[in-house]
Amino acid sequence: MTTTEKTAADWIAAAQDVAAKLAVDAVERDRRNATPYEEVRLLKEAGLVTLLGPPEHGGGGQTWETAYRVTREIARADGSIGQLLGYHYLWAWAARLVATDEQIAAVEELYTRNNFFFGGAVNPRDSDLTVTEDGDELVYNGHKSFSTGSRVSDLTVLEGVLDGTGDHIFAIVPSGQEGIVFHDDWDNIGQRLTESGSVTITDVRVPWASAAGYVDRKFRPLTYNTLNVPAIQLVFTNFYLGIAQGALAAGLEYTRDRTRPWPYGGDDKESATEEWYILDGYGDLQAKLWAAEALTDKAGAAISRVLHAPRADLTPEVRGELAVLIAAAKQRVIETGLEIGTKIFELTGARASASKHGLDRFWRNLRTHSLHDPVAYKRREVGVYALRGELPEPTWYT
Amino acid sequence: MTTTEKTAADWIAAAQDVAAKLAVDAVERDRRNATPYEEVRLLKEAGLVTLLGPPEHGGGGQTWETAYRVTREIARADGSIGQLLGYHYLWAWAARLVATDEQIAAVEELYTRNNFFFGGAVNPRDSDLTVTEDGDELVYNGHKSFSTGSRVSDLTVLEGVLDGTGDHIFAIVPSGQEGIVFHDDWDNIGQRLTESGSVTITDVRVPWASAAGYVDRKFRPLTYNTLNVPAIQLVFTNFYLGIAQGALAAGLEYTRDRTRPWPYGGDDKESATEEWYILDGYGDLQAKLWAAEALTDKAGAAISRVLHAPRADLTPEVRGELAVLIAAAKQRVIETGLEIGTKIFELTGARASASKHGLDRFWRNLRTHSLHDPVAYKRREVGVYALRGELPEPTWYT
Amino acid sequence: MTTTEKTAADWIAAAQDVAAKLAVDAVERDRRNATPYEEVRLLKEAGLVTLLGPPEHGGGGQTWETAYRVTREIARADGSIGQLLGYHYLWAWAARLVATDEQIAAVEELYTRNNFFFGGAVNPRDSDLTVTEDGDELVYNGHKSFSTGSRVSDLTVLEGVLDGTGDHIFAIVPSGQEGIVFHDDWDNIGQRLTESGSVTITDVRVPWASAAGYVDRKFRPLTYNTLNVPAIQLVFTNFYLGIAQGALAAGLEYTRDRTRPWPYGGDDKESATEEWYILDGYGDLQAKLWAAEALTDKAGAAISRVLHAPRADLTPEVRGELAVLIAAAKQRVIETGLEIGTKIFELTGARASASKHGLDRFWRNLRTHSLHDPVAYKRREVGVYALRGELPEPTWYT
Amino acid sequence: MTTTEKTAADWIAAAQDVAAKLAVDAVERDRRNATPYEEVRLLKEAGLVTLLGPPEHGGGGQTWETAYRVTREIARADGSIGQLLGYHYLWAWAARLVATDEQIAAVEELYTRNNFFFGGAVNPRDSDLTVTEDGDELVYNGHKSFSTGSRVSDLTVLEGVLDGTGDHIFAIVPSGQEGIVFHDDWDNIGQRLTESGSVTITDVRVPWASAAGYVDRKFRPLTYNTLNVPAIQLVFTNFYLGIAQGALAAGLEYTRDRTRPWPYGGDDKESATEEWYILDGYGDLQAKLWAAEALTDKAGAAISRVLHAPRADLTPEVRGELAVLIAAAKQRVIETGLEIGTKIFELTGARASASKHGLDRFWRNLRTHSLHDPVAYKRREVGVYALRGELPEPTWYT
Repeated sequence: MTTTEKTAADWIAAAQDVAAKLAVDAVERDRRNATPYEEVRLLKEAGLVTLLGPPEHGGGGQTWETAYRVTREIARADGSIGQLLGYHYLWAWAARLVATDEQIAAVEELYTRNNFFFGGAVNPRDSDLTVTEDGDELVYNGHKSFSTGSRVSDLTVLEGVLDGTGDHIFAIVPSGQEGIVFHDDWDNIGQRLTESGSVTITDVRVPWASAAGYVDRKFRPLTYNTLNVPAIQLVFTNFYLGIAQGALAAGLEYTRDRTRPWPYGGDDKESATEEWYILDGYGDLQAKLWAAEALTDKAGAAISRVLHAPRADLTPEVRGELAVLIAAAKQRVIETGLEIGTKIFELTGARASASKHGLDRFWRNLRTHSLHDPVAYKRREVGVYALRGELPEPTWYT
Repeated sequence: MTTTEKTAADWIAAAQDVAAKLAVDAVERDRRNATPYEEVRLLKEAGLVTLLGPPEHGGGGQTWETAYRVTREIARADGSIGQLLGYHYLWAWAARLVATDEQIAAVEELYTRNNFFFGGAVNPRDSDLTVTEDGDELVYNGHKSFSTGSRVSDLTVLEGVLDGTGDHIFAIVPSGQEGIVFHDDWDNIGQRLTESGSVTITDVRVPWASAAGYVDRKFRPLTYNTLNVPAIQLVFTNFYLGIAQGALAAGLEYTRDRTRPWPYGGDDKESATEEWYILDGYGDLQAKLWAAEALTDKAGAAISRVLHAPRADLTPEVRGELAVLIAAAKQRVIETGLEIGTKIFELTGARASASKHGLDRFWRNLRTHSLHDPVAYKRREVGVYALRGELPEPTWYT
Repeated sequence: MTTTEKTAADWIAAAQDVAAKLAVDAVERDRRNATPYEEVRLLKEAGLVTLLGPPEHGGGGQTWETAYRVTREIARADGSIGQLLGYHYLWAWAARLVATDEQIAAVEELYTRNNFFFGGAVNPRDSDLTVTEDGDELVYNGHKSFSTGSRVSDLTVLEGVLDGTGDHIFAIVPSGQEGIVFHDDWDNIGQRLTESGSVTITDVRVPWASAAGYVDRKFRPLTYNTLNVPAIQLVFTNFYLGIAQGALAAGLEYTRDRTRPWPYGGDDKESATEEWYILDGYGDLQAKLWAAEALTDKAGAAISRVLHAPRADLTPEVRGELAVLIAAAKQRVIETGLEIGTKIFELTGARASASKHGLDRFWRNLRTHSLHDPVAYKRREVGVYALRGELPEPTWYT
Repeated sequence: MTTTEKTAADWIAAAQDVAAKLAVDAVERDRRNATPYEEVRLLKEAGLVTLLGPPEHGGGGQTWETAYRVTREIARADGSIGQLLGYHYLWAWAARLVATDEQIAAVEELYTRNNFFFGGAVNPRDSDLTVTEDGDELVYNGHKSFSTGSRVSDLTVLEGVLDGTGDHIFAIVPSGQEGIVFHDDWDNIGQRLTESGSVTITDVRVPWASAAGYVDRKFRPLTYNTLNVPAIQLVFTNFYLGIAQGALAAGLEYTRDRTRPWPYGGDDKESATEEWYILDGYGDLQAKLWAAEALTDKAGAAISRVLHAPRADLTPEVRGELAVLIAAAKQRVIETGLEIGTKIFELTGARASASKHGLDRFWRNLRTHSLHDPVAYKRREVGVYALRGELPEPTWYT
């Protein structure tokens, strides 16, 4: 089967194959916290890195709906790698979001033909990268606190503010160059393999012509540009969902294989799989997870239609309603996932807390990244829409 | 536009029109607790009663997916009438579930041409109706504690156990006959207009030939027969969801129109619609409701496909997975709806507890019917499936 | 046993006796919504109305700690009567809170000797009662939206703003006078017997000398005055707690006496009292309720010490910490009580929703009064203290 | 101030001093996972190890109420050390629980005079230690999966079943002997410094005369013996509570010192300490924690009275009600603590997930030990009492 003959289901199955491989030593790798070169290689070999790439260059030509599902499948086995892949999809789409048709064509050919992996250094809350003009070139300098992908990336998306203006300029540059120094200082309680440490950018130069979306040094904004936030927020939501699914699956497996029935206090049970509280507990968690998944899938189908439609078609209303829907899905997945990550222990028992089982990694992973922006503000966004009918104004977070 | 030209969206809009009329005096009608003749007339006039009926007899020819949505829309305005309509759809489908092709054709023509409304007297937990043979006839006798629809129904579905056997026999009979006495003794805290009181059946006779699904006095079971439980459980879920949506909408409307900002303790706000806790609260409830709705819709699409497929095609696996999915959706809607029914008061304020606003009816309605069978066992069903991979054995409740 | 020989335990037992009488027809009385003359007579006969009154005038001479417990016991059986009694205690203490020693002595003798019941018309959010001077007299005029007690009270506490000033003046007047017209317009979903309707005050005159706490027409404030809010908020908390306890007790009784075991889906049980989910459910609710009760008792002991200590001793710090503690207790009781009021139905079953059992009155009662002021602001108060170490500034609500 | 002059408050202050020292490098020590010799030395130096010891031998002569509070204070800073100390108190009391008067006197003198620290090897679920008779001696052999304290203990409490009988025999032996080999194999996600690894016992001999509570090789049971379970369950509850308090305190401190206000979406705030959602969130958590604490304190006062009363006085009823009360407190503390351990991240923000802050240790610590026995069975115990009035039969867990 060639790449172009593969259906969405085939790609999801391919992702599940990779996930199965990642699952084998996920606990160990989480602990070792080494740079995930090998993990990214698996993604590349399976063709997942070019899932969204143009078929004419060897890409999968798939939709975002599938990209979200693939991200989720990978995150079930390894939240970090799910995040890396999901971020990659968004960076790979960054050109489509803001660039000109020519720029898009060039970027997509480049990364698809070379099976390149993207990293990025965008941290909109701090204006920490400056861009200066030097003739036909733009020069990036500065320091970013967090840059996901870093060492495992082939290309890096830079974002900075043009000196003396408020204009943000995106550019795609090779990661492996002298001016980019990754500091390997990401040491957090979760998502440990995401290589999200800081980066110093020194005199990294790109031609003005590569400034994404700029024509004659002017940026002409489209509502479509502002899809970056809903699209990435749904990337988050999908790898959160994968983490939550992975947690529930790991709990179920442990209970089936190892949990002993409790010898006191109730009816005699021959197996933990007959314990009322365990069945009740898993039933509750599974139902919650299915509900969160159904909402996430609904959002995925909706934004996928829009992401693949002509850019000029998008209205602020459609964009805003998508943002609200995704804000809702994100809340549900976070709350549900944290509950699952905590409750599985009560359904597996005391010995499940041994470090070797690594059942805490789901809670740690989800807890870590779900702090990206305050979920309280996501509730507020949905509340403002429900109560006042107002859509969130596009910012870097809404 | 003739009935047969109407799309699903048209029917949903028609349901919304009826709902708007029901909403006008929903609080009053709930209090008065009178038999809802007028309410059922509205349903009939809008064509909703024959939504599933064959087009050749004037029916809407719609799918169950639409029937569920219509039920939900009606329940948003009036939980009782939503329940009556949802039950009607299931009774109207009872022939399809168990009867022979000839019986189905006869029943569907009968009710569609006459715009007949169904009620029913099935209470499987107590064997309270007996059936005896008298030559070519079956004679029903007994007393049912709960019979939804009763006085407002044109046709009643009887269910009893054939004397000396364990066989349940369904039959459809005119409601208006001497042998059927409705006792008007439904007085519960919610779903007050559902006419769910007790009924005494005395010597109600039906030809053996009308015994649903019996050929030569023998019943040949199909897995399809057992869809009655998932189908009605999803009817429940949909009118619960409608009630929950109605609650949230009523809360939002009250807050917008009447709630005053709190003059103490925080930032000065000019309007309650700027209060953080109100926005946060509604955002949380809305997200939860959307998740429950997405799962319910997913279940509706799935069972609708199966209900309209050839009866012989249905396998126990598909039936069982549907039952589990619906059990999950039901849990989510109940929990979410009760939370909404309780929390809207905190978001509307002290004066919202005045009886004239009737904001308590959502909680009362949902609380009442959601006790139909223990939701704990629904959690258990989902848990058994998640943990042991076992599907629920078809019973009257699973 | 004379009144003065009674211990706190005796008084609580006396309250339980009254509660037992109130419980007999609590459901009916809630529905009938008649003025609770007879109920207040029971309180008077049991000596509960003068529980806090000076022993030398025949009062019980008890502490607030006991008054809170008594309020709670009454509320277990009837939330409305619990509220009336709790409000009465606060009104009866109003003199102590703000008045001069002579005024206090006069008021306490008056109400204790006569076994008088207090009502009150304070609604600080709206300045709706004006006070004008007329020589040696003050004249009250206006309309209050809510006046608890009204018709069943012997004395009414008036509160108004002196014309041309911002000064609030409290005065105690006989309820039965021409200038006070109760409008009997309290019709809310809960606390139906509290007679909390509106009242019109027309030319009600009191001597300047009766203006509570005024000496030479000047009010000299003490921190002790500001105990009114913590003290009444803990009155609320205690009758909420009583309602919650009543709900749990009613659920337990119903389950023991009437709930049938579920015949499907799990182990065969001979009695509902062996159902895992029922035991688990009640265990959860009981533990939550005990925790809320322990915090409420702690707050009760603390404020009681302060209320009975010399007025001048109270510092703003002690007052503020009490207010925060009580704000916390209130939250816990409300959240727990609403959960109990909702969940008991799942533990009692479908037939428990029959109106005759009245199991919904607990939720309705608690839901109604707990809206008095937004619980979100109580959370915020506790949060401000925890995070910033700041105590709430005394207002009418904090 | 000599030891005997210290009040309970002094001891709690002393515990807070030790806690302050432990807090300095708690995160590092958790990570390093080294044997906590130094930590136990701090406890000894502060006199906390002999808090319950007889004053005539230099002990503190304090009550269990204080011991619980001291345990809690230590656990606020370091959950592991809190557990070690709490277990020590129970082991030190083991003689009182089951031994003869002479044995008690000897043990208390021994450990108090020498400032000895106890560890223990009891794991009732598996019968893994056998006792054989050899003349006047008992010989212990076997392997225990979990033995808390181990290397840092001076004395070890052994528990085994006498060969050929069902009799459990407790004995106290020096930890440092050839026959006791600690395996240093405790590697769990939390409570990492508790030295709870496995131990092999080979031919450890004790005189028959040291068999706790045996007279003429016969054990005469008292209800008092069965206090071991409520007493240790409340030890658990107190160090869980300490962990939860530590988590909340750490969150508050981080928010005050480091969290930045969110720049989007709502009102402009100058400080995170003005964010509505942060104040609301901390207020909610603080109120829940206070309620759990009040219930725990109530249980502590109650069991302390009984533990210090004459052993023969204890009735099964009093014992049973204590067990139920403690089961309730345990539930509330676990649920509340896990919520706090999870939610503090949402109130501190993304950077709080850096490993160096170690804010995840509270969740990991509480999650780990709270699996000791299923909390679902604790809910059930409380439910059985509430619904059926039955007290838990004394077992190793109830």
